[in-house]
Amino acid sequence: MIILKNNQLVQREEAIIDMEDRGFQFGDGVYEVIRIYEGKFFLMNEHLERLQYSLTETGIEFDIKKGKLAEQLEDLAEKNQIDDGAIYIQITRGIAPRSHPYPTEAIPTLMAYPIPISRPIKLQESGAKVILEEDVRWLRCDIKSLNLLGNVMAKQTAKEAEAFEAILYRNPEHVTEGSSTNVFIVKDGKVITHPANNFILNGITRRYIHHLSNQLGITFEEDVFSVDELLNADEVFLASTTSEVMPVTQIDDYTIGNGEPGSISRKLLDEFFKHVDTDQIRV
Amino acid sequence: MIILKNNQLVQREEAIIDMEDRGFQFGDGVYEVIRIYEGKFFLMNEHLERLQYSLTETGIEFDIKKGKLAEQLEDLAEKNQIDDGAIYIQITRGIAPRSHPYPTEAIPTLMAYPIPISRPIKLQESGAKVILEEDVRWLRCDIKSLNLLGNVMAKQTAKEAEAFEAILYRNPEHVTEGSSTNVFIVKDGKVITHPANNFILNGITRRYIHHLSNQLGITFEEDVFSVDELLNADEVFLASTTSEVMPVTQIDDYTIGNGEPGSISRKLLDEFFKHVDTDQIRV
Repeated sequence: MIILKNNQLVQREEAIIDMEDRGFQFGDGVYEVIRIYEGKFFLMNEHLERLQYSLTETGIEFDIKKGKLAEQLEDLAEKNQIDDGAIYIQITRGIAPRSHPYPTEAIPTLMAYPIPISRPIKLQESGAKVILEEDVRWLRCDIKSLNLLGNVMAKQTAKEAEAFEAILYRNPEHVTEGSSTNVFIVKDGKVITHPANNFILNGITRRYIHHLSNQLGITFEEDVFSVDELLNADEVFLASTTSEVMPVTQIDDYTIGNGEPGSISRKLLDEFFKHVDTDQIRV
Repeated sequence: MIILKNNQLVQREEAIIDMEDRGFQFGDGVYEVIRIYEGKFFLMNEHLERLQYSLTETGIEFDIKKGKLAEQLEDLAEKNQIDDGAIYIQITRGIAPRSHPYPTEAIPTLMAYPIPISRPIKLQESGAKVILEEDVRWLRCDIKSLNLLGNVMAKQTAKEAEAFEAILYRNPEHVTEGSSTNVFIVKDGKVITHPANNFILNGITRRYIHHLSNQLGITFEEDVFSVDELLNADEVFLASTTSEVMPVTQIDDYTIGNGEPGSISRKLLDEFFKHVDTDQIRV
């Protein structure tokens, strides 16, 4: 495997980090996962724009437009002969003697490399089981940061329950998102998802679903919903770069709808499939 | 500088980490900073017990008692000839292909090394200026984890305001702690600090101040206080391993007391000085 480390392509075994990299000591960095379908990056611009947002919000001085990151990632994917997969990319604040404030001299550390992804087609057909967990994460979930311990712990709880994901709630009136997905309910034909604010990551696939809904004439609303509304929705589905559109048929012991993926979830999933098989439509 | 990496002493330049160390990709690890005064570790057992607590709460399988960590740290300090300073130690969940749930096979990564500390005596004498910031961190601040971006951003805001620290509040009725310190107010002769629950780190120095207060016959209470109570306290001080007892004389534009370190803060600071000059009293 070939890795992009700062501006160089290196072998996997050379992809090492200094112990005083702030990514390692503070989780002080941001990241993206960009999907590749049939050798083409899917929605790369949107991912790079969000990466720039995360960098700006955390005060990491790295200007994506100034560099040639898009070209470097294309090159990385080609060198690794990635046809169906994803590129993981992270940028930390760099190396400095350990101290909380932003160092004045550090140069950001960029690492990017391919990660294997297989489309979760079987589970998309059957629908996934998920669990409910309290959302204990910080209040800047709009930043795609490396501070992922809350997400990791929630996902582990899901795994132990043999569930695909943990859907998180701040309180019974406020469902936010999954540990690595956005959450959508369908009620009376409308798709509803949490507003894009500090409580959730504004998912690229989330935005793409908004776009697809518009195309299909499905009403798409941003609104906070409760645990009760979630459990009593006509349909529930998740979305993320790696799980695409994932119908949910069970939440803890509750069956959603008739226990099978709902018709609007299926419609969005079908439409998503069509698009990723053809082209990089811009949201 | 000599570094303890897992069970080996290595040179600084060999203190490197794999890019798939979960500390680097998820902030998936925990840490401690242990003070050394006059060549002796101060409250090492308490720090190691808290480290074990953080490991247990995050499900990182590392048994400190089984190993010889205390002896290894003593050895590390001696090899580096640390007379007055501190040892930083962090343990991550280890190296594994990137995926949120806990990997089944990973071996935790331990890194420990000396960090320079100078006693902030001048500021302790004059009293520190601090700022108020909203506490946006996660709801498991009882775990001393590497997910420190919220703390880092708050400390940066303090630095930009030329302040020593940011005191954090969840809402106007609920002050929690500083970005890397615990916060205490003195009112009518009583020392009051936030209860040791999920909103704060139960500081080792915090506990030591409880112990010193008992010795000195000063009432010590654990209670939530408001921003208003903070600003109108007779005295305010901070505590941490590196800032010891730090009187606060200004919060944003508010002067605390008469603008000089208060008498109870001074008394606790004097007592603290006496103890660290002599011995490792167990809390």
